[in-house]
Amino acid sequence: MDKGVTQTIAEYVARVMEEDIADSAAVSMVRRSVTDVLACIVAGRQEPVTEIIQRNLSSLYGSSLQAHLIGTDVGCSALDAAFWGATVAHALDYDDVLPSGNLHPSCVVFPTALAAAEMINSSGREVIKAYIVGSQVMGWLGHLLGVHHYSLGWHPTATVGVVAAACTAAAVWRLTVSEIESAIALAASQSGGLQHNFGTMAKAVQVGFAARNGLLAADLARNGVTGSKNILDGEQGFLAIHSAKPWLKMQSDMAMLKMVENTGLYGINIVHPAIIYKRYPSCYATHRPIATMLKLMNQFPLDASGIASIDVEVAPGALAPLKYHQADTPLKAKFSMEYVMAAAAYLKRVTLHEFTREVIENPDVQGLAGRVKVRENGTLIKGEEPSNTSLVDRGEVVVQVNMTDGQQFKEINMESITCDDSAIQKKLVECLGYARVADKASTLIQTIQDLNQSDRIRDWAANIGELLVS
Amino acid sequence: MDKGVTQTIAEYVARVMEEDIADSAAVSMVRRSVTDVLACIVAGRQEPVTEIIQRNLSSLYGSSLQAHLIGTDVGCSALDAAFWGATVAHALDYDDVLPSGNLHPSCVVFPTALAAAEMINSSGREVIKAYIVGSQVMGWLGHLLGVHHYSLGWHPTATVGVVAAACTAAAVWRLTVSEIESAIALAASQSGGLQHNFGTMAKAVQVGFAARNGLLAADLARNGVTGSKNILDGEQGFLAIHSAKPWLKMQSDMAMLKMVENTGLYGINIVHPAIIYKRYPSCYATHRPIATMLKLMNQFPLDASGIASIDVEVAPGALAPLKYHQADTPLKAKFSMEYVMAAAAYLKRVTLHEFTREVIENPDVQGLAGRVKVRENGTLIKGEEPSNTSLVDRGEVVVQVNMTDGQQFKEINMESITCDDSAIQKKLVECLGYARVADKASTLIQTIQDLNQSDRIRDWAANIGELLVS
Repeated sequence: MDKGVTQTIAEYVARVMEEDIADSAAVSMVRRSVTDVLACIVAGRQEPVTEIIQRNLSSLYGSSLQAHLIGTDVGCSALDAAFWGATVAHALDYDDVLPSGNLHPSCVVFPTALAAAEMINSSGREVIKAYIVGSQVMGWLGHLLGVHHYSLGWHPTATVGVVAAACTAAAVWRLTVSEIESAIALAASQSGGLQHNFGTMAKAVQVGFAARNGLLAADLARNGVTGSKNILDGEQGFLAIHSAKPWLKMQSDMAMLKMVENTGLYGINIVHPAIIYKRYPSCYATHRPIATMLKLMNQFPLDASGIASIDVEVAPGALAPLKYHQADTPLKAKFSMEYVMAAAAYLKRVTLHEFTREVIENPDVQGLAGRVKVRENGTLIKGEEPSNTSLVDRGEVVVQVNMTDGQQFKEINMESITCDDSAIQKKLVECLGYARVADKASTLIQTIQDLNQSDRIRDWAANIGELLVS
Repeated sequence: MDKGVTQTIAEYVARVMEEDIADSAAVSMVRRSVTDVLACIVAGRQEPVTEIIQRNLSSLYGSSLQAHLIGTDVGCSALDAAFWGATVAHALDYDDVLPSGNLHPSCVVFPTALAAAEMINSSGREVIKAYIVGSQVMGWLGHLLGVHHYSLGWHPTATVGVVAAACTAAAVWRLTVSEIESAIALAASQSGGLQHNFGTMAKAVQVGFAARNGLLAADLARNGVTGSKNILDGEQGFLAIHSAKPWLKMQSDMAMLKMVENTGLYGINIVHPAIIYKRYPSCYATHRPIATMLKLMNQFPLDASGIASIDVEVAPGALAPLKYHQADTPLKAKFSMEYVMAAAAYLKRVTLHEFTREVIENPDVQGLAGRVKVRENGTLIKGEEPSNTSLVDRGEVVVQVNMTDGQQFKEINMESITCDDSAIQKKLVECLGYARVADKASTLIQTIQDLNQSDRIRDWAANIGELLVS
C-alpha cells in the first residue's frame, strides 16, 4: 500500500527538529503570528464567553496548575489553558487566516503549543517548532478538504483544528510516528464544528474545543491509547467523510500533498502560501468590501447621510459565511455584510469599537445597513485562478455608492487584504488600548522577540501574564 | 417557521418530570439497562484502555472530587467520571444496542446521568429520568440520521451520543429550553466518531469522548454560553451534514419525529422499539450468525475438527461493521465474522473467554476461521421490512457447515437476539466472574433494584464502588 496522508503527516510531525526551523524567515513568521494572536487574545479577554469559561474553570474542569491562561496570572490544567486560549483568541474574529483552507490557524495552534510546552516547561524554540508544525498540518488538511468541506457547512478551524492541535502537542512532546498516528485518530474522532453556530458564542467555543480535544488526543496517545493507523485515508476516512469530493478525486490531491512535503526544508512551506493577518475584526469575507468602501469614502469626501443605497458584488461563494442580514448583536454584526458596509460608510473605519452595542444600536447605521444590497456575480471571476485561492478572495469585489442626489461612486478591488509587520504592531496597540493596557505594547513586543531565547517557557508565559494584568 | 427538531427535543428534555417516568414498565426497563451496563463496566475494568485512562486521570484531567469512577472507590471530576465510565462500558463491546439507530445507548447515557447527578448529589429517580431522556434522544436522532449515516462511515454511538449526553446532563440539571438548545449546539459542534477506529482502543474512547464532551456542553450552556438555537435543523444543520439523505427527504422524517413525540406519555416511547441486550461480547452484527451456528452445533453432535468450511450469508449492509477478516487481537476479533464463527464452532460458546489472547492464538480456531466464507445476499430480504429495522437485523441469516466427509448442515435464522431479565442476570454473573467478584452478584442486583429509592445518589454510587472493590 502506498504511504497515506496519515503516515505522511505523522512522519513529518515526528521528524521536524528545532534546527529545521532555525531559518530566519520561518522564525520571523512565527513572531508575526504570535504578535497578532496575542493582540486578539488581550482584546478578547473581556468578551462574555471568555469570562464565563474562566469563571467556571476550577469548578468542573480540574485544578492542576500546569499552564497559564494566556496573558493572565491564572494557572490551570493544560487542557483548560488550551481551551480558554483558543476560545479567547477567536472570540473577536480578529485573528489570522490561512486562505487556502478557509481556516484560522493561530487561534488553535498557538494556545495548544504553549499549553503543551508549559506542561513540560519546554523551550521557546520548541513552541516555534510546534507552531509551524501545527499550522502546516492545518494548511495541508484544509487544502485537501478544499472548499467542498466549507460548502457543506463545516467550520474548518474547528474540524481540521482538532487534528492540527493533536499534531502540535505531539510535536512539543516528541511523540513517535506510531503515537502520532493514534493521536490523529483520536483527534479525528472528535472532529466537529458547524458554521450553523456562527454569530453565537459557540463559534469561538468550538475552536476552543478543537484545541482542548486535540491536546487530550495527543496525551492519550502518548500514554498508550491506540487508534486507527490511517484514519485520514480511505473511502470512510476522515478526509473522505468530511468532503463532498469523491475519494478518487482526492487521491490526486494526495499526490499533491507528497509534492508539498518534498519541497524544500520541513516547516518552511508554511511561509508560502502566506498567512493573512486580519485588518478588521469581522469575518474575512467582509475584508475586501470594507477596504473598497473605505477607499471610496477617503477618495471622495462623501457625506454618509446623503447615501441612498450601497451595492456590493462579490464572486460566487464569497457570501457563504455571512449569515446575518440584520445584526442586533456584536457577534452577528461580524457576519453581516450589510452591517459592516454601513459602519464603514458612516464611521470611516472598522475597528473593535464598531462592534460594540453602542455603535450597533446607532439608528443611522442600522438605517443605512437596510439600504445595502449584496449579491454574488459570476462574471467577477476573470480567467483561471490558482487552486489555493480562498473562497472569499476569488475574482473582483465591486462596491457602488448611490447618493440621494443621483451621483454614483464605484470602486473595484482585486487584492487580498492583510497586515504587514508595522500594521500588526499598530493592531497590537489598538487591541491593548481596547483592554486599557496600551502602555504595555513595547515591552510585549520585546518579550515576543525573545521567544526563541527562552529556555523555560513557563517563565516566558508568566512574564506576559504579569505584564498584562499589572 | 415550523418548530424544528432542535426545539422539539429541547422542549421534551426540559419538560420530562420524575412523575412522567413513574410508570413501572419504564422503571423496569431502566433497571434492566443498568444491570446490563454495570455488568459490562465491571468486566471492562481491566481492559488496557481503561487502565491507561484511569492511571492518567489526576495528572492531566483535573482533581476535583465530584463523582466516582463507576464500580470503584476512586473519586474524580464529573467530566472524567463520564469519560471513563462510557469508555469502560463500551470497551468489551458487550453493552446494549438500539437497533433502529445502529447505536449503543446505555454506555453513553448511564455514565453521563450518574456523573451529572453525583455532581449535585441528586436522586436515583432523577438518574432514571435522565437515562430515559438521553436514550430517547439518542434513539430519535439515530433514527432520523438513519442507515445513511452509518453507511458513510460514522460511528453513531459517538456522533449522536455527544448530543444525547448533553441532553442527559441537561435533564439532571433541569436546564431551560433555551439553555438546552445551546447545550445541543455545543454538543453538536463536538460530534465525531469514525468506524475507521473499530478494532482499536479508540472505538471505546470515542464513546467516552461523547459522554465527556456532552457533559461539558451542557455545563457551558447552563453557565450562559450560547449556541445556535436550531443546530439540528436546516440544510447545513447537524442532521443534514451528517447524513447522505437530501434535506427534503429528512423533512418527512421530522414529521415522523413529531408523531413519535405526540405518542403517549413522555419518556415511555423508549420502551418500544426495545433496547437489545447483547448475548455475546462481539459486534451486534455477529449475533444472529453466532446464534445460528450454536444452534447447529447443539442440534447435531458436530465435531469441529471435521469441518471443511462454513458458509455465512446475510442481507446487504449487514457486514458493514465487520472490518477484520483475520483477527490477531481481541479488539479485532470482535469485528471479524470469520473469527467468531470459528470460535462458536470450536468452543460451542461465545463468551468473554473467547476474546482472550489464549483462544485467539489457538491454531485450530485460526485455521477454521480461514475456511469461513462470508457474503451478503440480497435475496435474503423477503418483502417489506419496517423502517426501524437495524442494518444487521434485516432479512434472514443462513449458516451452512460443510463437513470433510461431504455432509452439509444448514440453519436459517430470522429473529433478533437479545437477553431477557434472567439472561441479563446470568450475564451479570459471567461478567462479575470475569472480574473475580462473582459473589457480589446478588447484593449488586439488590442495589440496582433500590436505585429509585435513593435520595442521595453519591451514597448509591459509593455503595456500588465499595461492594465491587472490597
